[in-house]
Amino acid sequence: MSSSTRPTAAALIIGNEILSGRTADENIVVIARKLSEMGIDLSEVRVVPDVEARIVEALNALRRTYTYVLTTGGIGPTHDDITMAATAKAFGVPLVEDPQAISALEAYFTPAAMNPARRRMALVPQGARLVECAATAAPGACIENVFIFAGVPEIMESMLDAIADALARGPQTYVHTVSCSGLPESMIADELTALASRVPMIDIGSYPTFEAGKIGLSLVVRGEDAVKVKEAAEAISELIRAQGVEPEIREGY
Amino acid sequence: MSSSTRPTAAALIIGNEILSGRTADENIVVIARKLSEMGIDLSEVRVVPDVEARIVEALNALRRTYTYVLTTGGIGPTHDDITMAATAKAFGVPLVEDPQAISALEAYFTPAAMNPARRRMALVPQGARLVECAATAAPGACIENVFIFAGVPEIMESMLDAIADALARGPQTYVHTVSCSGLPESMIADELTALASRVPMIDIGSYPTFEAGKIGLSLVVRGEDAVKVKEAAEAISELIRAQGVEPEIREGY
Repeated sequence: MSSSTRPTAAALIIGNEILSGRTADENIVVIARKLSEMGIDLSEVRVVPDVEARIVEALNALRRTYTYVLTTGGIGPTHDDITMAATAKAFGVPLVEDPQAISALEAYFTPAAMNPARRRMALVPQGARLVECAATAAPGACIENVFIFAGVPEIMESMLDAIADALARGPQTYVHTVSCSGLPESMIADELTALASRVPMIDIGSYPTFEAGKIGLSLVVRGEDAVKVKEAAEAISELIRAQGVEPEIREGY
Repeated sequence: MSSSTRPTAAALIIGNEILSGRTADENIVVIARKLSEMGIDLSEVRVVPDVEARIVEALNALRRTYTYVLTTGGIGPTHDDITMAATAKAFGVPLVEDPQAISALEAYFTPAAMNPARRRMALVPQGARLVECAATAAPGACIENVFIFAGVPEIMESMLDAIADALARGPQTYVHTVSCSGLPESMIADELTALASRVPMIDIGSYPTFEAGKIGLSLVVRGEDAVKVKEAAEAISELIRAQGVEPEIREGY
């Protein structure tokens, strides 16, 4: 989107399992959708391995560039859970045991069952606030503009929901999708380019699909001005009709 | 992985549709798996919007850091397809019409049906070679260590397969997965940490799952030494058995 009034965000996905192909990330699309609904532009995503220096470098680059940074993965009791330590290093603060987190973990595991690994889950960067959610006793954390979430999708989403009200929101985005079958995008591309240049505050995306040998096309129109979004979608529909194809317009994606 | 003999790679995912949440990326996991099979470490992924300056910046950072950069998205005939132009800019070369690409497009569309938008699909950075594949007449391109692929998953995969033989390969990686049910990772985390520190060339990942209220745990052991990978997996199995839980070991993920 093109607006200086919208907060921006980056997602930092931390995990060897994503980069090795062992696990297909499910968090990016959830973060993208939820931020979009809040009028926040997800402006960048990075995926980095469980390597402290890489997390520190990415976190420092992103937190200085965007309104918010949301990290996923690498919190927990095992040796590969290093996001809290890396975040502390990025901010130049020590890792400290949070008494409230200890209480939550003791309540969950019982005090007798607390072992060193479980105590580790109460370590957060000094100055961080906890992110607590219904899905787990092991908290996430927030320090300045950085939110540290779990990587397990159900827990990540629960943590994101838990902090949603703390984020500044931007203006609502209106979306219309114009779709049709059997029309190559190259038949209307020149006219689309001309249209897009006439509506600079409106984002028009052209997404062809190829399924079972049939081509489909979705044109997605997004912007903060509901009237202009609708008008652009109608103009696109006319371009498609001029090719002898009947389009379908819908609100949303 | 920890080895200086392995080529490295970054994936640059280009597309507003991923950042808006309209589309769930399907390419990262395919790239990750295929590179992994080739002994190439996918070391970073970035997702950036259809904004030339952002693509140029990311491309220049990544191509100077990793052996290979694979981009997805933003090639095609429409106004939002700017990857070829951005790549030319990143390399400081002009965008030129490739005669071989024109021939391929004319053969597909017929010469009479070539319009300006279709000709645009033959523009590549000067000095680039085409990446041709069975799935499309619109080529990708390769310039130095950068491979430019389509964003449509079927086409991306076809292009990646088409260039696979041109990539340097690293040593084979061996993977064993030890999995069990009902055991929280925090019960074996301290022992796992000790084990991981004894086998620095072996990567051990701990991945809890929560499905339908049941906890599961997968420990993934990866490395270039097949014997040490198997030994580490067996040592992990013993840690689990010591908790009264019967683990399952399998090769692969």
